[in-house]
Amino acid sequence: MPPFDVPEGDPFGPHNLPYGVFSPAGSGEQADRSVGVRLGDHVLDAGAAARALGSPYASLLARPTLNALLAAGRTAWSDVRRAITAWVTVPAHQEAVAPFLHPLSSVTLHLPFEVADYVDFYASENHARNVGQIFRPDAPDPLTPNWKHLPIGYHGRSGTVVVSGTEVVRPSGQRKAPTDAAPVFGPSVRLDIEAEVGFVVGTPSPMGRSVGLGDFRDHVFGLCLLNDWSARDIQAWEYVPLGPFLGKSFATSVSAWITPLDALEDARVAPPARTYPLLPYLDDADEEPGGYDLRISVRINGHTVSEPPFSTMYWTAAQQLAHMTVNGASLRTGDLYGSGTVSGPQENQRGSLLELTWNGRDALELPDGKRTFVEDGDVVTLTAWAPGPDGTRVGLGEVTGRVVPTV
Amino acid sequence: MPPFDVPEGDPFGPHNLPYGVFSPAGSGEQADRSVGVRLGDHVLDAGAAARALGSPYASLLARPTLNALLAAGRTAWSDVRRAITAWVTVPAHQEAVAPFLHPLSSVTLHLPFEVADYVDFYASENHARNVGQIFRPDAPDPLTPNWKHLPIGYHGRSGTVVVSGTEVVRPSGQRKAPTDAAPVFGPSVRLDIEAEVGFVVGTPSPMGRSVGLGDFRDHVFGLCLLNDWSARDIQAWEYVPLGPFLGKSFATSVSAWITPLDALEDARVAPPARTYPLLPYLDDADEEPGGYDLRISVRINGHTVSEPPFSTMYWTAAQQLAHMTVNGASLRTGDLYGSGTVSGPQENQRGSLLELTWNGRDALELPDGKRTFVEDGDVVTLTAWAPGPDGTRVGLGEVTGRVVPTV
Repeated sequence: MPPFDVPEGDPFGPHNLPYGVFSPAGSGEQADRSVGVRLGDHVLDAGAAARALGSPYASLLARPTLNALLAAGRTAWSDVRRAITAWVTVPAHQEAVAPFLHPLSSVTLHLPFEVADYVDFYASENHARNVGQIFRPDAPDPLTPNWKHLPIGYHGRSGTVVVSGTEVVRPSGQRKAPTDAAPVFGPSVRLDIEAEVGFVVGTPSPMGRSVGLGDFRDHVFGLCLLNDWSARDIQAWEYVPLGPFLGKSFATSVSAWITPLDALEDARVAPPARTYPLLPYLDDADEEPGGYDLRISVRINGHTVSEPPFSTMYWTAAQQLAHMTVNGASLRTGDLYGSGTVSGPQENQRGSLLELTWNGRDALELPDGKRTFVEDGDVVTLTAWAPGPDGTRVGLGEVTGRVVPTV
Repeated sequence: MPPFDVPEGDPFGPHNLPYGVFSPAGSGEQADRSVGVRLGDHVLDAGAAARALGSPYASLLARPTLNALLAAGRTAWSDVRRAITAWVTVPAHQEAVAPFLHPLSSVTLHLPFEVADYVDFYASENHARNVGQIFRPDAPDPLTPNWKHLPIGYHGRSGTVVVSGTEVVRPSGQRKAPTDAAPVFGPSVRLDIEAEVGFVVGTPSPMGRSVGLGDFRDHVFGLCLLNDWSARDIQAWEYVPLGPFLGKSFATSVSAWITPLDALEDARVAPPARTYPLLPYLDDADEEPGGYDLRISVRINGHTVSEPPFSTMYWTAAQQLAHMTVNGASLRTGDLYGSGTVSGPQENQRGSLLELTWNGRDALELPDGKRTFVEDGDVVTLTAWAPGPDGTRVGLGEVTGRVVPTV
């Protein structure tokens, strides 16, 4: 079958066209990297194709990262997408770009952009309630008083954001049970995952200015899947009063493919009803729908353990961006922000093992044994799809990682 | 007086030689920037001098940032310093480099390095106790239980680290008094400063490996002064449970000069006695002294309001680096970490207005009026010096910034 004839129902058909960075297998050299666009089980070398076609977009695509494309802004993003759509769907163009299609299995995928700042939010009400109940069982309300007034977030470590497929070394650190007199040191014994969606900023903004709700699509290029690996024992001992640090900073995995917002127009949904009136800079009642209907699956060693629905998130990505900049903080090309763990209202929709096993109390029964937290050798994979045009599905690139023992 | 004859007692004599990045006044163009070395009230264009002398270090110095020098590693750092010392002290070399000396007043100073990740610690016991007493007056101990077992830290926003002299726009955000029914939005009414020391990482480390206490000097190039601007009202409402976010992310100012650790050998002092035994990766009892005797001054509109002594810090920069990487988090060239607010045991040694005014209760009487927090138009300046060889003083570059009203 010619590579352009993607089977009907393939979530990576020409209605999707996510962007990544690849090199011929075996070469990780920066000079051999190029922007690639996924079509079915092939990758189009978009840089080489653009050059061959004499496209004005070659300067954005014949690059070792997506950053030049990200920095080009909303109009360029739409123009480039329109051009590539023509290349892979119009027969005359297909012939010209066919030499630049590579089987996905023959290439190496890289971290698709240089991460500037990485911020992680906490935007699922179900997740926040579960965590509150687990860690603060005596509190009058599992949500802190600020939770429904602002999207709570914190900065994470951008230097340890890694691409899907990167092995994750089990972190070591301090932990202390409430009954212990002093902390002990060793490999984490409560290594967890968090199923999230990551948003990638393209257009920067200057210091001292805020970015309004309505400007979300001018600044955010697209989204990816994100696994916010978390060592619960390290986190529990360190996080009061300044928040998570080493419990999270050892690794954050992102999918190799960034799905442009333009591919997700049919997935937009209204967020849940708001409990309290929101301050004007967060009030999205009169905005276009800010939610996205992404159906996530969490698999451990191939077995599905959860299916979190992103549509249930209380805070939208547009609200998170508005909040993140309302104090005048600038945006840079390559800024990445995570949605926070996605957990739905049902038990089989929870996005972390902390919640799925209720802090280790209720082990999951998998075909290869019981699990409370992640064990060495386990492979954790997130996948997702969204409704596309005309009943199609838009696939998000998977994010996967195997846990290996502490060195 | 020839520029090489720095007056006796000048804290920027040839025993100091901090590094920065400058351009001729009026030009901020990347192409016009070069690494500069401060000598008295002059800047040596180290890149141009290296090229003129045919120095092998031209490739590290004729650059628009310090990053290439930072990445070159400890041996190169010492070699380059030795070479530059010769250029400015040996008469034959002096003649050759004299054309590359510019009056400090004639140049523009820039952010000296590209900041990778920015981490901020909380390492002063006096500061942590003061903050605990102010915010948790009913707690049995002002320090959280983890405080003396690990250096508490969190990630900040590297995209808003700015060089000394940059104006700081008063941030807006949500705040809520305990008695208010709902949060309100507006410019911060409790804008504060934090007097800190920043450490600049040169040599990277791989993911999955930790950096031991003894490897501190192989990875850290030098230090700077740092003002961690903080909006106390925004911070108070947002920071539970995930730590500071918008209360800090609007701006962090650093001095334009990075003082190499090699210039601070005579300033090394033992840290305070430890209350509890430390876990092995943090136990510095058998290490060389990890503290630095830096005498900081905090001025508002020219009036000294505090003199925090860095020698009182409970956790050392080497311990902070060991902790930051003990979970396998990698280091990158350009990583910056702040010590946390420096506060000594005396009232006039406190490094924040929060502590100096006891959360606004006791206003400072300045010649130009009372101050509880920072007002629009105020200029806040941190300076510092350390003991140098033979009774000299090693000056740290100042960090200064004027607060301007919300846009």
